[in-house]
Amino acid sequence: MRKIYAIGIGAGDPEHLTVQAVDRLNRVDVFFVLDKGEEKSDLVRLRQEILDRFVTRPYRTVLVPDPPRDRTPDDYRAAVADWHAARAELYEHAILSSLTPSQTGAFLVWGDPSLYDSTIALIEAVLGRGNVEFEYEVIPGISSISALTARHRTTMNQIGRAVQLTTGRRLAAGWPPDVDDVFVLLDAHTTFDRFTSDDLTIYWGAYVGTPDEILISGPLTPALAAEIRETRATARERHGWIMDTYLLRRPTP
Amino acid sequence: MRKIYAIGIGAGDPEHLTVQAVDRLNRVDVFFVLDKGEEKSDLVRLRQEILDRFVTRPYRTVLVPDPPRDRTPDDYRAAVADWHAARAELYEHAILSSLTPSQTGAFLVWGDPSLYDSTIALIEAVLGRGNVEFEYEVIPGISSISALTARHRTTMNQIGRAVQLTTGRRLAAGWPPDVDDVFVLLDAHTTFDRFTSDDLTIYWGAYVGTPDEILISGPLTPALAAEIRETRATARERHGWIMDTYLLRRPTP
Repeated sequence: MRKIYAIGIGAGDPEHLTVQAVDRLNRVDVFFVLDKGEEKSDLVRLRQEILDRFVTRPYRTVLVPDPPRDRTPDDYRAAVADWHAARAELYEHAILSSLTPSQTGAFLVWGDPSLYDSTIALIEAVLGRGNVEFEYEVIPGISSISALTARHRTTMNQIGRAVQLTTGRRLAAGWPPDVDDVFVLLDAHTTFDRFTSDDLTIYWGAYVGTPDEILISGPLTPALAAEIRETRATARERHGWIMDTYLLRRPTP
Repeated sequence: MRKIYAIGIGAGDPEHLTVQAVDRLNRVDVFFVLDKGEEKSDLVRLRQEILDRFVTRPYRTVLVPDPPRDRTPDDYRAAVADWHAARAELYEHAILSSLTPSQTGAFLVWGDPSLYDSTIALIEAVLGRGNVEFEYEVIPGISSISALTARHRTTMNQIGRAVQLTTGRRLAAGWPPDVDDVFVLLDAHTTFDRFTSDDLTIYWGAYVGTPDEILISGPLTPALAAEIRETRATARERHGWIMDTYLLRRPTP
């Protein structure tokens, strides 16, 4: 039977790859790569560096186009669901046309496949369509939040306290109840700006683990928020894209 | 100057080690190992297997006794703080007496050093005492929650939703507000039992990544809760210890 791996390749540092990930990379006949266009060509290059460094057997790469996506939908979840359905159809076709029934394919996932990534949902959606059968295995990776905390040499949680992982969109609705440590992912709008009078500490990082890594941390004053905002805008303009994450920490009561 | 690494070694599978972790292991002169006594000798053996497999240069291991700890304190956080202070003093002595000023030491941390682990706080406490200077670096690892979700082939978050990481103690106070996915760590009391009429799905795992791995998932009915409770009690008795984690998932509104 066909086999598919969803392989976490870490948050940007090729040395984040696990021994397990390297082992699985070397069982793969075809890597399926989502073609997101030019703007993230740095990531395409970094992924290729990972393959060049760790894979010692022949393989093929199949580019799959990214279906168009409404970035400012009225109904966010419905728009994402439509987009997933379109992707599932494209990948079903790619798997059927690229893998013989005894071959192995893989998706390479930045960070960890379980955290704010749609690859597992995509694989389940392809299986759910019922037109192709395969086994699949998920290989965990170093997540963006593990990479961020390691570089800042801090922890996710304070002693005995809870941690929330959330999106910029959700944080904009207010500080989550009953937690002191909040990781914010997928935030295009520097939502931390709204919390500069809340006695918080911020641990911010962009391109973490890569040679372009930027780390800023400290008490979240209006001045520090402005510094991060400007650093972020400048970096985004220079690279053409940005991948950043941050932790907001409130002192425990 | 002395150098100390806090190295995440993954959640139980030696293949969770990253390329970076293997690189750092091979720069270490002295591994500091907390001696927790006999009951977790499986973990001591597993850690030794990791060193045997990946380290290709000579090293020493220094066992540091675990100070006594009040497991049922009136004031949980004060008890933990006292315990950390006693540990810091022991490790300060171990570092001063075992490492020459040009040598490198390391702490090996199960999972990821940032998640419900006290090694970073311990290192900061040793530095804060002011009697020994060293540089230190944190090497991220595959966390228990990444390992759990990978083995269950599920995600941490639902689309666009928040995730909470919390303790059994905190979950016992009630379902956290405003989240649908809750990871529970450090739960000795099968607190999931309290939520069997809440239309939840549970993804439970013990010894994840090891040959003794047990995975159970499904709708959290009273029958499934009983099955996990009994499986957990039996496994704990057989091994003399247990390390388990679970995700509780509520359907999104």
